[in-house]
Amino acid sequence: MADGRQKKFVKELLSKAKVRREQGLYVVDGPKMCSELSGKDVWKIFVTEDFFGSNQAHMCARLLADCGYETVSASDMRQMSDTVTPQGILVIAKQRRTKGLSGMLDRIENKEAPLLVLLESLQDPGNLGTVLRACEAAGADGIIMSRDCVDIYSPKVVRSTMGAVLRVPFIVVEDVKKAMERLRDETFLNELSVGRIGFYAACLDGDMSYTDCSYKAGSCFMIGNEAHGLSRELIDAADARIKIPMHGSVESLNAAMAATILVFEADRQRRTAGN
Amino acid sequence: MADGRQKKFVKELLSKAKVRREQGLYVVDGPKMCSELSGKDVWKIFVTEDFFGSNQAHMCARLLADCGYETVSASDMRQMSDTVTPQGILVIAKQRRTKGLSGMLDRIENKEAPLLVLLESLQDPGNLGTVLRACEAAGADGIIMSRDCVDIYSPKVVRSTMGAVLRVPFIVVEDVKKAMERLRDETFLNELSVGRIGFYAACLDGDMSYTDCSYKAGSCFMIGNEAHGLSRELIDAADARIKIPMHGSVESLNAAMAATILVFEADRQRRTAGN
Repeated sequence: MADGRQKKFVKELLSKAKVRREQGLYVVDGPKMCSELSGKDVWKIFVTEDFFGSNQAHMCARLLADCGYETVSASDMRQMSDTVTPQGILVIAKQRRTKGLSGMLDRIENKEAPLLVLLESLQDPGNLGTVLRACEAAGADGIIMSRDCVDIYSPKVVRSTMGAVLRVPFIVVEDVKKAMERLRDETFLNELSVGRIGFYAACLDGDMSYTDCSYKAGSCFMIGNEAHGLSRELIDAADARIKIPMHGSVESLNAAMAATILVFEADRQRRTAGN
Repeated sequence: MADGRQKKFVKELLSKAKVRREQGLYVVDGPKMCSELSGKDVWKIFVTEDFFGSNQAHMCARLLADCGYETVSASDMRQMSDTVTPQGILVIAKQRRTKGLSGMLDRIENKEAPLLVLLESLQDPGNLGTVLRACEAAGADGIIMSRDCVDIYSPKVVRSTMGAVLRVPFIVVEDVKKAMERLRDETFLNELSVGRIGFYAACLDGDMSYTDCSYKAGSCFMIGNEAHGLSRELIDAADARIKIPMHGSVESLNAAMAATILVFEADRQRRTAGN
């Protein structure tokens, strides 16, 4: 039986980015996403009485055995979950913290030519989720987000990433430009044995087509806010301003589509011989 | 003043695909989208008393002058619109009908090497909207949809296409395989002076990477249902089964991301010299 305080806490974690940040926790809902968690992610697990009879219970059997759980009524689960039809398992999980840029780069396998994505002020949870998923699928090594991006641990982002939030290394930085400078700092990169990184700002009025640059060396795509694009400061700090040429009367692609096109072009080049 | 019957009719057009189809009408909401309409699209225009005072009224001035309009109260507009904050203009528009495959191909400029997208049983309005927008941006010439795709004139699709629904030629066909056969029929293509079209089925277990095919000749990408992919029948009818290689543990990309990646790869090849 979940008590009133617990239900209130889950609801706050679902609705308030501030509470998530202060507590370092977030909510994972449903067997599919929960099965992606490892024991060290878990803070507390709630399961309905009926869950063990469902044909998806096996997905989370190990997690439940390792971490223990609390049984709640279907009615309590409905009150805690923000989905229309809760699937019988809900986990309060610990946020994975990557320790700064060096922590993120440390986790990268492809140190010689990392592929990064930098997001400035991205506001739409669905867009952020899609970017994470595209990054994982295209083999990007990490994501750098400005502090004012939508919270990556918001329930909508967590759901739309389909688990990528647990697998793609990311960091949130206070000062994006400083982070860029750090990533350009030879001493810093040498210490971590990471190759030089070129910064490509995606702009509607970019100087060159995105297909005219080579991303075989270390590359970081910079994507801006849905309505306003990248800030002037960041565009000026980039090595190149690239655009995605467009036919018709389309004014712009959404941030998630743009990021998808760019990371898959980088992956295409990296899979292809020659330049 | 909108009467009760009118309000009910608008609500039905917003909520029921069947009514839209039977009437050949749909609803366009807000000045941005309405400004994309031409006079011949309009069946009836509703405007609030306040609309002419808004700084977006100029966008629709010509349409209002050409077609006339009915003034309604803000309260009536709220009851008719399915958006949270109606923007003062709502149009009941006539669906644009393309007359079969030949009608669609007739509208194509690039007859020698058309770029088409075929959608089977696509269910998510946001996905269909994104596909339309990606198609327009990448210069695709037309979209062929199976009858069981989500209605392209549903308000969610119309909104998410940002006007592409008015600009990208599309047709809905009863029998997709027959349409493919027709598009392969030399007599048919010759009559319309259209070049041969290769069919590329996007499958998770495709035989080759999408980047290993050339799309410089006439090409049609085939994209299936979000959960089940393409039907076996359509896969077997394709010329090649292509996949988008993926890193990490991503099981699949959503249909809109896949379509975006494919049409932009075709556009990249078409902009690039050589093969």
